[in-house]
Amino acid sequence: MRISIIGSGNVATHLAAAFANAGHNIVQIWSRDFHHASLLAYHTRSEAVERIELIDKNIDLAIIAVKDDAIANIASQLNLGNTLLVHTSGSTSIDILKGSSAKIGVLYPLQTLSKDKEVDFSHVPLLIESNSEEVVQILKDLASSASSQVLEVNSEKRLSLHVAAVFASNFVNSLYSAAKEVLDTQGLDFQLLRPLIAETARKAQHSNPKEVQTGPAIRNDQATIHKHLEFLSSATPQLQALYETLSQHIINFYHKP
Amino acid sequence: MRISIIGSGNVATHLAAAFANAGHNIVQIWSRDFHHASLLAYHTRSEAVERIELIDKNIDLAIIAVKDDAIANIASQLNLGNTLLVHTSGSTSIDILKGSSAKIGVLYPLQTLSKDKEVDFSHVPLLIESNSEEVVQILKDLASSASSQVLEVNSEKRLSLHVAAVFASNFVNSLYSAAKEVLDTQGLDFQLLRPLIAETARKAQHSNPKEVQTGPAIRNDQATIHKHLEFLSSATPQLQALYETLSQHIINFYHKP
Repeated sequence: MRISIIGSGNVATHLAAAFANAGHNIVQIWSRDFHHASLLAYHTRSEAVERIELIDKNIDLAIIAVKDDAIANIASQLNLGNTLLVHTSGSTSIDILKGSSAKIGVLYPLQTLSKDKEVDFSHVPLLIESNSEEVVQILKDLASSASSQVLEVNSEKRLSLHVAAVFASNFVNSLYSAAKEVLDTQGLDFQLLRPLIAETARKAQHSNPKEVQTGPAIRNDQATIHKHLEFLSSATPQLQALYETLSQHIINFYHKP
Repeated sequence: MRISIIGSGNVATHLAAAFANAGHNIVQIWSRDFHHASLLAYHTRSEAVERIELIDKNIDLAIIAVKDDAIANIASQLNLGNTLLVHTSGSTSIDILKGSSAKIGVLYPLQTLSKDKEVDFSHVPLLIESNSEEVVQILKDLASSASSQVLEVNSEKRLSLHVAAVFASNFVNSLYSAAKEVLDTQGLDFQLLRPLIAETARKAQHSNPKEVQTGPAIRNDQATIHKHLEFLSSATPQLQALYETLSQHIINFYHKP
């Protein structure tokens, strides 16, 4: 397919690379930051354009991969007639594109993507949506060319997947940071925790996480919880409330009817 | 070494297996639950004993691997003269063993261990402590026979590592459960999140987690946070406060001076 990309952030970068690698033709790239657009264009052998109006309508698909709150404005500035138009947002309804084209859809990669971190795109679940069966088929074919996990979900289910992803990835990563803060106060190397982090994630690959929970909170071991809170109050007081909330959440989850 | 083990839970089971595999002689096992002790004894070709007083003093080391609040009581019931005695607790000072033997120490495996989940023990950090240089050397040799990661840390540093481990493993796993709860309400398969969970942990193997944080909270994207809280309030209200606390924690961590 001939594809143009609006945006040059984490999602735009990985989608452009994945579709280029799958043999598609990345035609043009526009971004608020022309320097970023140029870099991405260089890596995908496409053309960076300075003004959004310069995106040419002679393409099969335009992908809007920008911040959620910029999608509506970007869509209204495009002048692509009835070219297929999709956004890549987990938490934005497909309806936001209504009026911008007769052919609209969503293509949401369920993965944590950082520009400068390579990822095996063939295992990234791609969630697609359209109000047209024809477009669903086009997006399925496109998504399948880059990933082995393609699923059609409506806007509400996609929102729930995004919420779940925030828990399982964004919040999880913030707890890795919290753990590092604790070790930093003692001059201990974060490296010591990496086998534990890897094993915890590995268990979740094969188990129901509910069934492999360990630690003081699931045992309702108040003596240890108290010791930990005392330690935190002197070493990293900014983490005390977080420890309490998460412990109480686990206690409620397992011990309340 | 000739080693007897007090306990038959997750830590006792994995330590017994690891030291047996490393060529040590597991002599006797006692546990509150004789059936569990017998099973572990069967797997490590050792003898299960019904009463704790039957643990024979003709050994080089007794390992107390029981719940933290049972250590003191168990130690006082042993009658092993000055046999080397260690506990395996992250959050318990070595001092709890004072008076039970002249040779005491700690051997704490920094890993999430579930009885029925195999783990590559050679990568489990083993943290050791003793008030005697001679015992430190004995424990270093023993630990090194089963793991490539052996480190001497005092009781305060060990406590900080346990607290950090609770954040990086126990709390993380509870967030995997929370994510599953969200998907369950929509009839979506937890399998969809597994690539994301694996990638999030993989990133932390090579990066400082602070530098690879993604998601609505680090962008202080209040519109998306609000959408997510609205979704949670109807689908899984028990997760709403947790979402708010964690989002606010991330916002404070990155956006407050």
